[in-house]
Amino acid sequence: MAKKALILMGSDSDLKVMNEAAKALHALEVETEIHVSSAHRVPDRTMNFAREAKDNGFGVIIAGAGLAAHLPGVVAACTTLPVIGVPLQGGALQGVDALHAIVQMPKGIPVATVAINGAFNAGLLGAQILATGDEALAERMVRYREQLAAEVEAKDAKLQEIGVDAYLSN
Amino acid sequence: MAKKALILMGSDSDLKVMNEAAKALHALEVETEIHVSSAHRVPDRTMNFAREAKDNGFGVIIAGAGLAAHLPGVVAACTTLPVIGVPLQGGALQGVDALHAIVQMPKGIPVATVAINGAFNAGLLGAQILATGDEALAERMVRYREQLAAEVEAKDAKLQEIGVDAYLSN
Amino acid sequence: MAKKALILMGSDSDLKVMNEAAKALHALEVETEIHVSSAHRVPDRTMNFAREAKDNGFGVIIAGAGLAAHLPGVVAACTTLPVIGVPLQGGALQGVDALHAIVQMPKGIPVATVAINGAFNAGLLGAQILATGDEALAERMVRYREQLAAEVEAKDAKLQEIGVDAYLSN
Amino acid sequence: MAKKALILMGSDSDLKVMNEAAKALHALEVETEIHVSSAHRVPDRTMNFAREAKDNGFGVIIAGAGLAAHLPGVVAACTTLPVIGVPLQGGALQGVDALHAIVQMPKGIPVATVAINGAFNAGLLGAQILATGDEALAERMVRYREQLAAEVEAKDAKLQEIGVDAYLSN
Amino acid sequence: MAKKALILMGSDSDLKVMNEAAKALHALEVETEIHVSSAHRVPDRTMNFAREAKDNGFGVIIAGAGLAAHLPGVVAACTTLPVIGVPLQGGALQGVDALHAIVQMPKGIPVATVAINGAFNAGLLGAQILATGDEALAERMVRYREQLAAEVEAKDAKLQEIGVDAYLSN
Amino acid sequence: MAKKALILMGSDSDLKVMNEAAKALHALEVETEIHVSSAHRVPDRTMNFAREAKDNGFGVIIAGAGLAAHLPGVVAACTTLPVIGVPLQGGALQGVDALHAIVQMPKGIPVATVAINGAFNAGLLGAQILATGDEALAERMVRYREQLAAEVEAKDAKLQEIGVDAYLSN
Amino acid sequence: MAKKALILMGSDSDLKVMNEAAKALHALEVETEIHVSSAHRVPDRTMNFAREAKDNGFGVIIAGAGLAAHLPGVVAACTTLPVIGVPLQGGALQGVDALHAIVQMPKGIPVATVAINGAFNAGLLGAQILATGDEALAERMVRYREQLAAEVEAKDAKLQEIGVDAYLSN
Amino acid sequence: MAKKALILMGSDSDLKVMNEAAKALHALEVETEIHVSSAHRVPDRTMNFAREAKDNGFGVIIAGAGLAAHLPGVVAACTTLPVIGVPLQGGALQGVDALHAIVQMPKGIPVATVAINGAFNAGLLGAQILATGDEALAERMVRYREQLAAEVEAKDAKLQEIGVDAYLSN
Repeated sequence: MAKKALILMGSDSDLKVMNEAAKALHALEVETEIHVSSAHRVPDRTMNFAREAKDNGFGVIIAGAGLAAHLPGVVAACTTLPVIGVPLQGGALQGVDALHAIVQMPKGIPVATVAINGAFNAGLLGAQILATGDEALAERMVRYREQLAAEVEAKDAKLQEIGVDAYLSN
Repeated sequence: MAKKALILMGSDSDLKVMNEAAKALHALEVETEIHVSSAHRVPDRTMNFAREAKDNGFGVIIAGAGLAAHLPGVVAACTTLPVIGVPLQGGALQGVDALHAIVQMPKGIPVATVAINGAFNAGLLGAQILATGDEALAERMVRYREQLAAEVEAKDAKLQEIGVDAYLSN
Repeated sequence: MAKKALILMGSDSDLKVMNEAAKALHALEVETEIHVSSAHRVPDRTMNFAREAKDNGFGVIIAGAGLAAHLPGVVAACTTLPVIGVPLQGGALQGVDALHAIVQMPKGIPVATVAINGAFNAGLLGAQILATGDEALAERMVRYREQLAAEVEAKDAKLQEIGVDAYLSN
Repeated sequence: MAKKALILMGSDSDLKVMNEAAKALHALEVETEIHVSSAHRVPDRTMNFAREAKDNGFGVIIAGAGLAAHLPGVVAACTTLPVIGVPLQGGALQGVDALHAIVQMPKGIPVATVAINGAFNAGLLGAQILATGDEALAERMVRYREQLAAEVEAKDAKLQEIGVDAYLSN
Repeated sequence: MAKKALILMGSDSDLKVMNEAAKALHALEVETEIHVSSAHRVPDRTMNFAREAKDNGFGVIIAGAGLAAHLPGVVAACTTLPVIGVPLQGGALQGVDALHAIVQMPKGIPVATVAINGAFNAGLLGAQILATGDEALAERMVRYREQLAAEVEAKDAKLQEIGVDAYLSN
Repeated sequence: MAKKALILMGSDSDLKVMNEAAKALHALEVETEIHVSSAHRVPDRTMNFAREAKDNGFGVIIAGAGLAAHLPGVVAACTTLPVIGVPLQGGALQGVDALHAIVQMPKGIPVATVAINGAFNAGLLGAQILATGDEALAERMVRYREQLAAEVEAKDAKLQEIGVDAYLSN
Repeated sequence: MAKKALILMGSDSDLKVMNEAAKALHALEVETEIHVSSAHRVPDRTMNFAREAKDNGFGVIIAGAGLAAHLPGVVAACTTLPVIGVPLQGGALQGVDALHAIVQMPKGIPVATVAINGAFNAGLLGAQILATGDEALAERMVRYREQLAAEVEAKDAKLQEIGVDAYLSN
Repeated sequence: MAKKALILMGSDSDLKVMNEAAKALHALEVETEIHVSSAHRVPDRTMNFAREAKDNGFGVIIAGAGLAAHLPGVVAACTTLPVIGVPLQGGALQGVDALHAIVQMPKGIPVATVAINGAFNAGLLGAQILATGDEALAERMVRYREQLAAEVEAKDAKLQEIGVDAYLSN
């Protein structure tokens, strides 16, 4: 049975951005679950999500957090599933703090970090990871890339046809 | 058959650090191949490594580069396998440039970024990714974590036994 | 025959800023072509633009990109024409990521980098480069500078005449 | 009975720096305990130190960590005792990552952060905190400050007496 | 008698943010006083607030400032009470300057620094500090944390019940 | 007659790094001249180098400076030849100050900026610029790139032949 | 006769901010002149302002610029009068580039740098400098400081009288 | 009578760097006094140096400090003499913290900031400031600049004579 993706975030104020990860996964037909669960306010509950994820049928976890973003690292400490961390933009440092707090994990416990606010890419990466054990998903991933390429080519064709001024006033 | 991990780097001056990824993978009994292939000096050759990786039995690619580190992104553009990027320390910016050039990938093509010089963690993450489709590897991953925990506990036990001064003079 | 300038960008969302390069080149009567072509989504197509640029009559390439901005470096790897890189402002890091990803090119493949969002200056620099082999263009460049100087002098003359308060309320 | 201070760090490689906190506390006659316990490798063990600290007679916890430094925040999530965080210098970012990961705690769970590698000051701050409920300790704190002031005055007196050159060649 | 908290800020333009500290303290039933008193414009007056704080019944001081934020350090130099520093967002550097000017205190005079604009957490930390000598306050602190946890659980329960789209359109 | 390259630097302490630009130019058989001439200590002399460069047979200027690096911009203000700026590493900010002071030129006067300490690449870029009007140089540039590619391929071949351990112990 | 202050800026878009310097100087009854004169577009004209400043009765020069802000340094290179530099906020780096380009002057040619957008303080500093040779101005400076102090005290008195809520709703 | 310069620093570990300011002042025959006096450890003593400086015959104060460098601002708050701040390199942030803590002074109390570790330039700036009221010193300042220029010209003449290789092997 195809493995699912688990999406966690520390606060419901992160839901709009993190939902982009779900959209990417849905586009690739990966089943997902989304939960709000803070590493600091409900640490035990959060760690249990991580500990039970594999037995609950998840193959990858995507965790997003801002500021001193501990959620992805705390989750990664409680599972051997791959954990993808999404640093969220916000506060005075605009997500640089979150990037540092997620990507600079010490030896032993990695977190696969994507761009600041890169939740959509986190979803794609989650699908790529699950595709290493799921050939049908791997095929859908290839189709998705072809579609991305076609979109760029179509835009450039239009630009050549109508010119910069018309394109910009569209 | 178990999938292999492909390790790429842009220059042989990166070999010592990137070999840590191979060490982590070997500790978890994952077969690896290591190549030097620059995104800027031999772009076609590098992209062919990426394009043929899946057919050559690889399930994950680890790419390390410093400065304006394009290698992981260029590789990720040519495959749908998960690509792990290792920003390498060096130059005046000490790897901050490489971190930015790897983690801030635009929408559509993610790179799973680890810490600056975090090649060992990249190897562990590669193993975790392959383990999503390889239960025996998943088991070895769990054992590895237990060993990490035991080492910390042993160190603290020794510290309690002999005290700070003796510990530091060891 | 006078050489042309080729302007490339990774996404049509960059068109408005990058069109400033075209405006500068037009002001100096340099023929230009503008294309959207991403280094990550359509790598082969992008590299072909670079590889065929010289034979297609181009003497300089201007490439603009944001975030982990690989486009200028990927283009520079595929041509020996001078490549000017424009780091584009955007995302949480406001273009610092793009600046690092463009200017910090490794030994062997340089990119002539201008300011963040400095597309107009990229156009001027492109003209200055083409002018090294085109005396008429070099003359137009000198005229352009004289005009810049005259504008500053005119503004200061007006300021001295009407005073700060009147100048600011204009 | 006077409350104790608990000093935690994620790795024994942090022991030399973090022992400065103990030295400050000893100078002020505060009883301390030091443990190595990683937030990532042994999360349960670490959280238990925090949960049981108050019942074990501790009044303040000092936690030091480098890189993506989660230890102080994870500890703070598991106790209502004041937690002092010490960002440790190291790695490519020299402790800026640790500073961000410690000081930028989200609303609800504060960490009292000191300077990068400021373990000695963390010890002094711990003593100041305990002194709010311990008048004898508050007295010793006042004496300590007087001594600091006297040292500065003595150094300047010597400088005035022997001059810059003699002072520097000492 | 329960000790009070003193809140200082350098300018009345900081009042709105710093009042969050008062709100946190009030929620925990700690008596507070708020004053505007600049370290640069009225240094003597400011230092007297610090010097007399303990005798006036205060147990902790919270000082907020932006830019070259000297207020917390100047206050800390004049008292042995614990001083909590709040770096305030503002100006071109968005509070990074204030963070550096507050957290990087030299050996001998610590300031307990919280996040940029983290005045609410400064209030909580102040309460935690006072609670080391006030068991009733310590009890209220525990209740406060339980309430935080309950809020997160309630939000996630609602999310599971109504789904992402409904939650976001609320 | 083939155009020459002029290399300027603000201090003779920059000579060792800036000489790398000359080496690159020599490898491509471009005639060069090197001068020490500070924008701050001898502004008139420096500006005269720039003003007379074109008439003296130069087609491109390479200017290197550290700290508040004004040399490239001051030179660019006095010529319409393309000016390549090399930010030099040094001082507390390790060349980030020089990068900012060179790359962020205002509208009207561009400087073609290369990496911090990227003098060798500045030489290559200078040759690429001169090659837009010199077909023989353009040919030598193509040969140089082929040689770079061959070196990478030879290194990887050796690595595959002797293995990582032997390669590293070489 | 009392010396005057000369205010220079590179572009009329800087006039609104730089006029704050004039306001401070006027408040202290120092005569000022303001000119727009770019270091890059009209270098000779700009340098002449600096060279002739002393003979024209000026005792101090205030120069403001943004981005790669060379104006203050170029001016300082052409006079031995004290030059105050004002880094102006703007562009993607928000004035950090201008701060580096102004404050990090190399040995021999200092620029007295104030805060980003700190034009008002530049005016005060200019007055303080002129006051070292003008006792009447020194007296006015003392009065100005007393007024600053009185304003802070008045604000705090009002806050104590009406309370936080009333103060904030004013 | 000619006015003197007062040099203050927070710690005797800053003496070697700050003595460069004295050397510059001595080269220009300005009388100086140097004191160690911390803003945090002996605030009253430090403020008295500032308050009494003018009456003691000083015309300018140079204050150097590292980390959260409050000394220049605290001194500036207690005098209307011009205060020059020297951010000192050191600690994990290498003086960026000190730069922020010195240059970003709030409205009303400016500090004339020089480069990180720029003590020699601080001395020159101090002399330039005193020279606004001392024509003989102004003359010596002009001579000093001519000497700087001559040194650069001599170095370049030697470089042209003996060539790069001989120059570098000197």
